[in-house]
Order: sequence, then C-alpha cells, then structure tokens
Amino acid sequence: MIDRDRQWRSLMEMAEIGATPAGGVCRLALTDEDKQSRDLFVKWAEEAGCEVRVDRVGNIFARRAGTDPDAAPVVTGSHLDSQPLGGKFDGPYGVLAGLEVVRALNDADTETRAPIDIVCWTDEEGCRFTSKTMGSMVFAGLLTEEQVRAVTDPDGNTFGDELERIGYAGAEPVGGTPVKAYFENHIEQGPVLEQAGVPVGAVVGAQGQRCFLVTVTGEEGHAGTVPMVQRKDSFLGAARMTDAVNRAAFQFDPVPVATVAHVRVRPNSRNTIPGETVFTIDSRHRDAGVLAALEEVMLGDIREIAENMGLGIDIQRTSLAAPVAFDDSCVAAIRRAAKDSGIACMDVFSGAGHDACKIASIAPSGMIFVPCEKGISHNEAENATPDDLAAGTRVLMGAVVEAANTP
Amino acid sequence: MIDRDRQWRSLMEMAEIGATPAGGVCRLALTDEDKQSRDLFVKWAEEAGCEVRVDRVGNIFARRAGTDPDAAPVVTGSHLDSQPLGGKFDGPYGVLAGLEVVRALNDADTETRAPIDIVCWTDEEGCRFTSKTMGSMVFAGLLTEEQVRAVTDPDGNTFGDELERIGYAGAEPVGGTPVKAYFENHIEQGPVLEQAGVPVGAVVGAQGQRCFLVTVTGEEGHAGTVPMVQRKDSFLGAARMTDAVNRAAFQFDPVPVATVAHVRVRPNSRNTIPGETVFTIDSRHRDAGVLAALEEVMLGDIREIAENMGLGIDIQRTSLAAPVAFDDSCVAAIRRAAKDSGIACMDVFSGAGHDACKIASIAPSGMIFVPCEKGISHNEAENATPDDLAAGTRVLMGAVVEAANTP
Repeated sequence: MIDRDRQWRSLMEMAEIGATPAGGVCRLALTDEDKQSRDLFVKWAEEAGCEVRVDRVGNIFARRAGTDPDAAPVVTGSHLDSQPLGGKFDGPYGVLAGLEVVRALNDADTETRAPIDIVCWTDEEGCRFTSKTMGSMVFAGLLTEEQVRAVTDPDGNTFGDELERIGYAGAEPVGGTPVKAYFENHIEQGPVLEQAGVPVGAVVGAQGQRCFLVTVTGEEGHAGTVPMVQRKDSFLGAARMTDAVNRAAFQFDPVPVATVAHVRVRPNSRNTIPGETVFTIDSRHRDAGVLAALEEVMLGDIREIAENMGLGIDIQRTSLAAPVAFDDSCVAAIRRAAKDSGIACMDVFSGAGHDACKIASIAPSGMIFVPCEKGISHNEAENATPDDLAAGTRVLMGAVVEAANTP
Repeated sequence: MIDRDRQWRSLMEMAEIGATPAGGVCRLALTDEDKQSRDLFVKWAEEAGCEVRVDRVGNIFARRAGTDPDAAPVVTGSHLDSQPLGGKFDGPYGVLAGLEVVRALNDADTETRAPIDIVCWTDEEGCRFTSKTMGSMVFAGLLTEEQVRAVTDPDGNTFGDELERIGYAGAEPVGGTPVKAYFENHIEQGPVLEQAGVPVGAVVGAQGQRCFLVTVTGEEGHAGTVPMVQRKDSFLGAARMTDAVNRAAFQFDPVPVATVAHVRVRPNSRNTIPGETVFTIDSRHRDAGVLAALEEVMLGDIREIAENMGLGIDIQRTSLAAPVAFDDSCVAAIRRAAKDSGIACMDVFSGAGHDACKIASIAPSGMIFVPCEKGISHNEAENATPDDLAAGTRVLMGAVVEAANTP
C-alpha cells in the first residue's frame, strides 16, 4: 500500500536541500545542491534494496530486481534539479513516487516479472546550461554524450567537468538497452485538474512548441523633442506586436497558448525613445498543423506592423518541438489503474515539456498528473496536497505492476 | 567678431574630459570629471579677464565688468555636467558660447554698460542625484540650499559632501540678486531646425511635462499550461496601455508627445506569464490645458484596460512641470540680433527642460537653439556643425550686448 505520509515526509526532506527563504528550492543542475539531492535519493534507493547504476551523463537508475532476469525493465522517475526559484514538487515528485512504489512493493513482499528502474534524469530544467531534458535526450539518442558534456554554463564551466566534480560521471553507457515501458508522475503545472476537482490526470499527449526571438529596431531620440509623427519607437512597435500575437492565438480552436514574456528595451531610459526592443514568443498547441498556421499568422502580423511603422524586424525561431502523443497502451494502463483503485481520473494534455516526451520516441511512455495549487509552478509558491500526491502514486503503482507483469 | 574655430577648439578640448570611446562624454555632476571641466572653464574665464565667484551650491559666475558699477548683470551660460553616455554639446555649448562672447568683446575692446556673467549651473542633467536643474532651481528660489545639499547618489554620497570633495562649495549666497536678463544657448535636441535648414531658433517657450510610473499587476503562471482565457498577463496589459497612450496623444492638435520608454517585466523569463510590469509615461505639450486633458484620457484608458483584463493597476505621477513662456523682450532681442547679423532665424519651442526654464521665473529669460544632427541628443552620437554653433553665438552676442547697454 502506498504510504501517503511516508511519501510526503520524503518530499519534505528532499525539499530541505537548496531550500529558499520563501519556501521553494534552488537546485540547479550539477551544483552542490544537485549532488546532495542525488546522494539522498541513492541512499534511500539502496535502503529499499535497489541496485544503483549511473550512466556517463549522470542519469541514475535504481533497480528493484524482477523474477525474469531477461525481461526489459519498466522505468519510472523524473528529475531532482530545479529552476533558480523553483518549487518542491516539479521533478522530485516523479522520482519519489517511483521510490514509494518500490517501498510499497517491498512492504507487501510483492514480486514483479520485469525489474523496475527508478530513474533520476540529469538536467531537466535547462536553466544552467543551454538546453532542457539533456539526460533523457542522450538516453533517447536525440543528443550525443559528447554534445552534452561540452555545453557550458554562464561562468564557462562545462557540463562534463561539473558532472565529474560532483561525482556523478558514471561508467554505464547511456541508453541503447530496451525499455518495457516508461511512466512519469508530475504535478500538472496548470489549473485544469484543480478546477475539475479530479486528483489524477492520464496524460494523452504533450503540446508542440515553437519559440521565437524578435528584435525590433527603431531610432533613439529625445522623448521631449522628436515629434510623434517622426518617431520610430521600437517599444511601441513591440507593444502592438504583443497584442497581435495574443489576437492571433484566438483565431484557432482550441486556442493555442502564445506568450510574450521576456522583454528587453534599449536604452530603457524614461526620456529616450526606445531604439531597440527584443522580445520572446512562446507558442504551444497539441496540433502541429495549428502551430504552423499560428506561426504564419503571428509572424505575418508582426512584419506588417514593422513595415507600417518604419521599424526594422528580425525574427529567429529558437525552438521547434513537435507535439507528442503518449502510447495508447500506457495511457490505457493508467486509466485502468485509476479505475481499479477507485480514483477519479480524466484525460489531460501536458502544456510543458518533460523527460517523458523524449523517452516517448524510443519506448512506450505515459505520464500521470496530479493537481497543483492554482496551477502555479516554476515558482517558490508551488504546492500540492499529500492526498493528491498519494493518489497519483497509487495509480502509478497499478500501471507499473501491470506493465512489469505483462509478458 | 565671434571666432568660429576658436569656439570649436574650446568645445573639442572640453569634450576630452570624460571622453567615451564612441565619441561622447561621461561627466556626471560632482564627479572628478565634472571638477576637471569646471577647472578648465575657470582657467579660460580668468584668462579672458573675468572675475570668478562660486556660490554655495557650486554655480560658477565668471564676470566681465561693465562700465556702470551699479547695473545688474546680463547672465548667460548653461551647464558642463552630462548624461552617463552623453554628447559633446548638451550644456558645454551654452557655457562656451558665453565665453566666446566675452573673448570677442575683449578682442574688439568693446565695453558694455552692465556686467556680463558667464554661468555654469550645477547638475542640470539630474542623472546622478534625484532631480534635474538643481543649481538653477536654488538660484531661482524653487529649492532650498539645504534640500539640494542633502540629496544622495545611488552610493549614498550626498550632494553637499561631493560638492566639497571637488572643491566647488563656494562662499557666495545663492541667488537673491537682480538679473538684468538671462540668455542660454543650446543644441535643439530635436529635428525641427535641421529639417527647416535654419541655423538659429528663437525659443518662445518650453513644453510643460507630466510623467507617470504605472505598475500593472497580474498573475505569474507557466506559459505552456495556463489557458489563454484564464491568464492575467501584466505585460499584455502594459502593451495595450502603451498603444492607448500613443493613440491618446493623437486626439490633440498640435499633437503632444507621449512616450513609454522605461519598461521592467517580472520575472522576465521566456516561459513564465509576466506577473508584474512597470513602465513610465513621459508626456509634454506647450499648453497646460492640453496636458491636463491628455492625462485624463490616457489614465482613463489605462484603468479601463486593466479592469477589462482583471489586472491590478497603480499610477503615480512622478513629475509635473508647467509650460514656460520665455520673456517677449528677450525673444524679440534674439530675433533682432539674428536679423542684424543676416542669420536666418525661426521661432521654435523647446521640448526639453533647461536651466533657462527655472531662471525664467525670476528674470527676463530667452534661449537660442542651433540644429543638432538628426535631432539626436542624450547620446554619444550627438553632433552639431561649427558654422551653426558660431551663428548661434553671434546671435547671442547681439542679444547680450543690447540687453547690457539698455538702461
């Protein structure tokens, strides 16, 4: 039986590592705090009887043996690194839900045919080095070990050197072995489950994403003296483009998300007309066709506004990820496990990217979401209830055991 | 006769103090660079036979004696301090035009009835301490000596301590003595003269100004997961408000200037919906009634947008300056001096604030503008031609001499 309080205590103990004054955590990938959280997980996994292996990009696998020595493992987990001002649950919940499943199976003395691997992927957040989900991407063959080891943080430290410094450059090759199924528990990071009052979501897919960096070039001038009709105000242009991005999204159904969130104005002085404004657009949708059509509308509107205002425009596409559909049999197993446990469950979509989206390209994969307070994440205020977290882990146990026992 | 090349050489020598690599100057008020520029001016003024006095807030007066010992002085000058990345002409031109007038009168052995004071006002730019035109405001009785000496820079140094440190805390009381007339030469800091191809502007007045700090409060959330209709996006709100500010200005004729130029977005992360956006509005017009009506329209539109989008709004008025009308007799003297010298001259308005706007409250005052390249100022690229600068100084000499000889 899943022990709600044991899981909660483990989450809270993990959250003490890199704890921030406002109740969040700061555990950037491959820092001392990341090492401490990994050490604690390894200790707990070994106490639960697991055999721990670390691969050459630092992914940790803690194996509970199965009865069939030749069976491919069922893998479950997530990550322990965090945003600079992140919360207690984004990542650790998936790892410790896997641990709780193993502990509960141990308590019940239950064997499974296939082994169960609890995984901790390296650098999911991507806020210290250059890219997200690096450990799982190497595992899935989407990046090479050499590429990942060479990336640097803002201080010039390489991923490879930092991995060795914290003692997690393992000896195992990365990936290349079969995975029976992969399951990942995570807080939803959105408001849908909370608003529906449903404790568990069976994630049917994850949105695709297209991101852009837009540079608007105007002309600096004195805000008191250059007549309005002679201005080339880059920020006024960016403001109209931001409105256009928002209006473009509402032309589609269901409405994609499109967000202007990072803005830099130069010279950013009260009495100087802004000469240059740079902003980001992050657009996501579950349908690749809608995402492509949205791009066309948004960028067309932006170019038209620039032309009408005499502004220079440069648009770089900074990321392009196709939508992910999780494996039908994994999603069905999650729905069944919820039903068997009497836990309300609804199909949901993932707005965020996850390690599971990468593993889905090489193995049958699924995700289980639980509600988080007000949908808030990437934030020290991130919160979830012990009951919902336990419900999600009960469903995980059902799905993992079914997959591990299916020939 | 005004010596075009001598004036240009003096301007270029002054511009070596605090010179920046891109051809501008950095001479923040009361820094070592400000001291060096003051020392150079005092040396030149004494070489031109002037008697130099410094008042208790550091305003420097270099007097060329008149024939009537009881006559109030005609004062002319400007400032030597600059923006952090300022140009060579904003300020120094007015001071060195006054010096060139004295040098030319000396060359011609011409006496005037009233004395002529070349003034260098302290801290016109207002970018190191808290407020603009501090020296001239104390002189005009708009601030007290104590208020100004107590203001601090971002490092906690007081104006008073810094003034003493650079040796310019003089013994003279500030103001309180009659001024016959005040003239100030300056680059236009706008494109009107250059576009008209006219070398000299008789400034009839200066715009009033109302500035605001607007704080828009929304709700942070994950840019991938929070549905569009549930968002409270502070930056999207600020973008629509920026557009509204611009459209509000165009409801009036002549069109006031209204600029959103300083913007701060929190947390300013690509994948987080902006929780708070703070921006400035700088509005200016020559008519106080229009400025008040514009405020009503702009702030009404901003509040309506906030209400429609469910955003919090806080608006602070950070500055309020009434329009200034320069003295009719001073403006007429400038027009006459231009006509007598055969120099084309047109009436213009000042978009920026100047020391002359403060002195206008206690003495008959006027300003003479010359074109600056593309209207650019507060910028290292600020530029003006030796010919235009000399034309402005010839007009200044005519106006100063007429005022000094009028009983």
